[in-house]
Amino acid sequence: MSLRPTLDFLLYQWLKADSLNERDRFADHSRETFDAVMDTCERIAREKYAPFNRMIDAEEPKFDGEKVILPACTQDAHDAYVASGMLGAAQDFEMGGMQLPFTVESAANAFFGCASIGMGAGMLTTGNASLLMVHGTSMQKEVFAKNEFSGAWSGTMCLSEPQAGSSLSDVVTRAVPDGDDSATDPLGPRYRIKGNKMWISAGEHELTENIIHLVLAKIPGPDGKLIPGTKGISLFVVPKKMVNDKGQLTGERNDVALAGLNHKLGWRGTTNTMLNFGEGKYPVTSVSGGLDGQGAGAVGYLVGQPGKGLQCMFHMMNGARIAVGIGATMLGMAGYYASLDYAKGRPQGRPISAGGKDPAQPQVRIIEHADVKRMLLAQKSYCEGALALALYCARLVDEQHTGTADAADEARLLLEVLTPIAKSWPSEWCLEANSLAIQVHGGYGYTRDFPVEQYWRDNRLNMIHEGTHGIQALDLLGRKVLMENGKGLILLAARITATMKRAQLVPTLAPHAEALAQALKRVIHATQAAWSTGEPNDALANAVPYMQAFGHTVLAWIWLDVALAVLEGDAMQSVASSEGKIRATTYFYHYELPKVEAWLKVVENRDPTCAAMPEEAF
Amino acid sequence: MSLRPTLDFLLYQWLKADSLNERDRFADHSRETFDAVMDTCERIAREKYAPFNRMIDAEEPKFDGEKVILPACTQDAHDAYVASGMLGAAQDFEMGGMQLPFTVESAANAFFGCASIGMGAGMLTTGNASLLMVHGTSMQKEVFAKNEFSGAWSGTMCLSEPQAGSSLSDVVTRAVPDGDDSATDPLGPRYRIKGNKMWISAGEHELTENIIHLVLAKIPGPDGKLIPGTKGISLFVVPKKMVNDKGQLTGERNDVALAGLNHKLGWRGTTNTMLNFGEGKYPVTSVSGGLDGQGAGAVGYLVGQPGKGLQCMFHMMNGARIAVGIGATMLGMAGYYASLDYAKGRPQGRPISAGGKDPAQPQVRIIEHADVKRMLLAQKSYCEGALALALYCARLVDEQHTGTADAADEARLLLEVLTPIAKSWPSEWCLEANSLAIQVHGGYGYTRDFPVEQYWRDNRLNMIHEGTHGIQALDLLGRKVLMENGKGLILLAARITATMKRAQLVPTLAPHAEALAQALKRVIHATQAAWSTGEPNDALANAVPYMQAFGHTVLAWIWLDVALAVLEGDAMQSVASSEGKIRATTYFYHYELPKVEAWLKVVENRDPTCAAMPEEAF
Repeated sequence: MSLRPTLDFLLYQWLKADSLNERDRFADHSRETFDAVMDTCERIAREKYAPFNRMIDAEEPKFDGEKVILPACTQDAHDAYVASGMLGAAQDFEMGGMQLPFTVESAANAFFGCASIGMGAGMLTTGNASLLMVHGTSMQKEVFAKNEFSGAWSGTMCLSEPQAGSSLSDVVTRAVPDGDDSATDPLGPRYRIKGNKMWISAGEHELTENIIHLVLAKIPGPDGKLIPGTKGISLFVVPKKMVNDKGQLTGERNDVALAGLNHKLGWRGTTNTMLNFGEGKYPVTSVSGGLDGQGAGAVGYLVGQPGKGLQCMFHMMNGARIAVGIGATMLGMAGYYASLDYAKGRPQGRPISAGGKDPAQPQVRIIEHADVKRMLLAQKSYCEGALALALYCARLVDEQHTGTADAADEARLLLEVLTPIAKSWPSEWCLEANSLAIQVHGGYGYTRDFPVEQYWRDNRLNMIHEGTHGIQALDLLGRKVLMENGKGLILLAARITATMKRAQLVPTLAPHAEALAQALKRVIHATQAAWSTGEPNDALANAVPYMQAFGHTVLAWIWLDVALAVLEGDAMQSVASSEGKIRATTYFYHYELPKVEAWLKVVENRDPTCAAMPEEAF
Repeated sequence: MSLRPTLDFLLYQWLKADSLNERDRFADHSRETFDAVMDTCERIAREKYAPFNRMIDAEEPKFDGEKVILPACTQDAHDAYVASGMLGAAQDFEMGGMQLPFTVESAANAFFGCASIGMGAGMLTTGNASLLMVHGTSMQKEVFAKNEFSGAWSGTMCLSEPQAGSSLSDVVTRAVPDGDDSATDPLGPRYRIKGNKMWISAGEHELTENIIHLVLAKIPGPDGKLIPGTKGISLFVVPKKMVNDKGQLTGERNDVALAGLNHKLGWRGTTNTMLNFGEGKYPVTSVSGGLDGQGAGAVGYLVGQPGKGLQCMFHMMNGARIAVGIGATMLGMAGYYASLDYAKGRPQGRPISAGGKDPAQPQVRIIEHADVKRMLLAQKSYCEGALALALYCARLVDEQHTGTADAADEARLLLEVLTPIAKSWPSEWCLEANSLAIQVHGGYGYTRDFPVEQYWRDNRLNMIHEGTHGIQALDLLGRKVLMENGKGLILLAARITATMKRAQLVPTLAPHAEALAQALKRVIHATQAAWSTGEPNDALANAVPYMQAFGHTVLAWIWLDVALAVLEGDAMQSVASSEGKIRATTYFYHYELPKVEAWLKVVENRDPTCAAMPEEAF
């Protein structure tokens, strides 16, 4: 019942991750090197993360007026993670990386999410530096990205503002060229930045000697006004402390100031901040003066082209969305393991039988009750299914990067369609798993003496950050299933159909294949019916129920494909483990997939009940 | 959008609560006296409860080694509640009560749940004293109940033990007659009690001068052994401090000691305790000595007959279950109002239109987005529907107590069937409402700067206490729909059918009536199919999905009946308020009721997937 065998099965028995070694980029790797990475991460997670998960919740970050204080265990965990080399796992050997497939990197990082999601591993730093590797200049890669991959510095992403959460077109952070020599700064075109950024995770701390912010801001037009919409957005790299072109600290602080720490429901090990850029708290005088002649503003260096900031940022956001899905999944998994363990040890009640309960008999352990088994099996089907989907997506990322041109393009399109699901589905259903984990514990689950209530609190973030549920749904139904003439959806349908065809040949799976065929048909029909008027208001009014139905259909497909791998597999797995996966599949088909119909009714009918509700009628 | 108009509509327009005044017991009352009670409770809740809801969460109860410390606001709130007379609202005028219908009492108490559920009003004290009014001796009523109704003392219910949570047949707390004069104690047959009780809410505090525990314990048989099962359980009244037959404290402490405070996920304003009875910390020497000759044990007085303790306790538990449902509902309602308020004030994003968004236009308030309206309408339909059900049940309680013999018996049976729903349905769906309230707030909802995260934490308790979801489901499918040859279910079906028949005549409601007819048919069929083998293991394996489907069907019926009241109503309500209720009904029928089919499939098939899952396959 531990995470490792589940990961190994999915990686090798199902996804054949070891065959990636046949590709040039991964030629130096083997199952052995993959295993070594997994071993290392599993060990660090066990030793440096899991034991401190409650502590970082109880001792949330504090600002003493000068520094943000975190428990010492957080620094230890951070240092161990850095030492593992995982920050640069996917990078070239020449960059000091491991050239590890993203599939294996994702699997290895899963251990940390299971052990202590709030402690934070390197997701933001890796994502930040990886973005620079794609869109930054050589110097930006050398100075910023390299110091992030080494763990000397850490990274953030600064998108939201207090008045612009989900609506990035409304950011009002301004960036103006920083004087006459601004264009020739070796670190990139230099700007002065002023604005307030909200919800910045890891925005301030002392874990690393510097923090590299990637900041969305707008360069005013010739009239001095900001360009409305996302077209006006540019991307800047803004270090907390000024650095030179050798990647050394100059000793000067940049004008990035902590405006406040957010006090959260969960996920408390990671600071979440409001940051003021260029409010004048730390004026930077070592470089020339800004358009206002007073050197006001935080110093930032343009990344990519002006006005193309959001496209650059999406490079990081797509990765972040898959990572959020894995995080949600791992919280679900942690709750599953905790409640399974509890259910095996807790005696309570007696079996129900036709003759009635005999109170003279000893109590049985609660895992022997059907309803407790139902709650455990639901958790297993949600969490292992979500993990499989996440790794499937990670495998597509590898295909996109190292496959043939055709395969890469197919992978790209499939990822476009699957990313909203990989992010939203675990956020919703592995949260439900955490609620079931509490329920299995009874009253004990409601106390802070057991870990499950924290998992549930931590997991509630995932439907909100990196694009809310509503935003993901608009992305899915409003863009992803339509793009390139619906090619992404067509590709996905083809893969689902291929799985169905194989399953039809297996008597025990054939009924599932039939149910999946029906669900897919309904989803495709609902997609068309939603858009039949061509009016986005009609189509998108029920985007969330659509996404829920789409997600359940995708997960049903994933489970069927996993079940096929179980039945077609060699003797690698135990009988019990195989039985568990087959039953989780059955559970999903009998208890979950039928919900698809209920969700799709309103989509197909373009039901206006909600959209047309007058405000005063609430 | 405030609670009062909703309550008034349900009480008078729908349930005709004012007509209760035609009955002898309530003859001194009028709409005016009901309004005065509502006014008082609304005011106290607003002034003494709501402003302190966050404080009682942040400053949870602490034990200083001698006393349990609560914030001062809790005492203020308690005193104000006591002064309102609500503790004895339902009692006879001669007992100092108000002879208020339970329907009005429940509605008035709802304000406190909405303002601060964790502060705790008088539910346990009222329930405890009411039980004594039914099962206690005249002296027990006079001494214990009267002092509880006056608010001088408070009450608890002590059922669970560390090894016996849901399984009360396994309690091992022992009660032995307390010496030769034990049978003639004026306060009732006197026993010495030893054992540990777990999850005792309000088990220790300084809010009142005494605490009256109602304790389940077993009297050993002639062989000195405890009788297995619930048959062996008796009920005792055990005061924290010893009292005389005048209802005065004697100055001696009883041997009830705080073993520990539970540290909870939410609901922190109320202490939750583990209590040790008779461990010898406070030996009682003023009365003679117990069978072991050493006076060991807490002193308790038998209530009702030996071995009939659980039946007595159920008098309190049934009331408590409806109260839990109302509490869950009010937490949901509080979140609904908070998120509605936020959605009306928060600008973010722009309308979706066929021409695309125009970023030059100002942002709109988020209540203008279809998905936000969906989340608000879902909350409205869950919470107002649950409130209607709760008041419907409360009205049945009044019928049971003051109706004709036939009506009273019908009300009793309907309550048997509806109580598991009134408890479980709001616990599940108003919790979901709270999650949606967080979602409407976006990132802000995840911070402790807004109240919704606390509502969500507080509400998570309701699926656990007073009988878990699983226990409610076994009660429903295993007992309630079967009892007296299924008469409860037949009565309920008749009422649902009557509503349907009326709705069929209203063109806008006729499709709902048809959908409800189908759902009811499915539920009845599923009930029969589940029991078709006569084997409880088969029937009850999917008791929770059955309860979910049953609950949604009941709520659909309640909404349809409410909608009829709206359409048949006079001009009392505003057009907007009527529109809101009709749309909430439509929402429930289009978005929620279709789920019934998905849940019932496994019930009808007696699906063994979960029950047959081998332990080692998890």
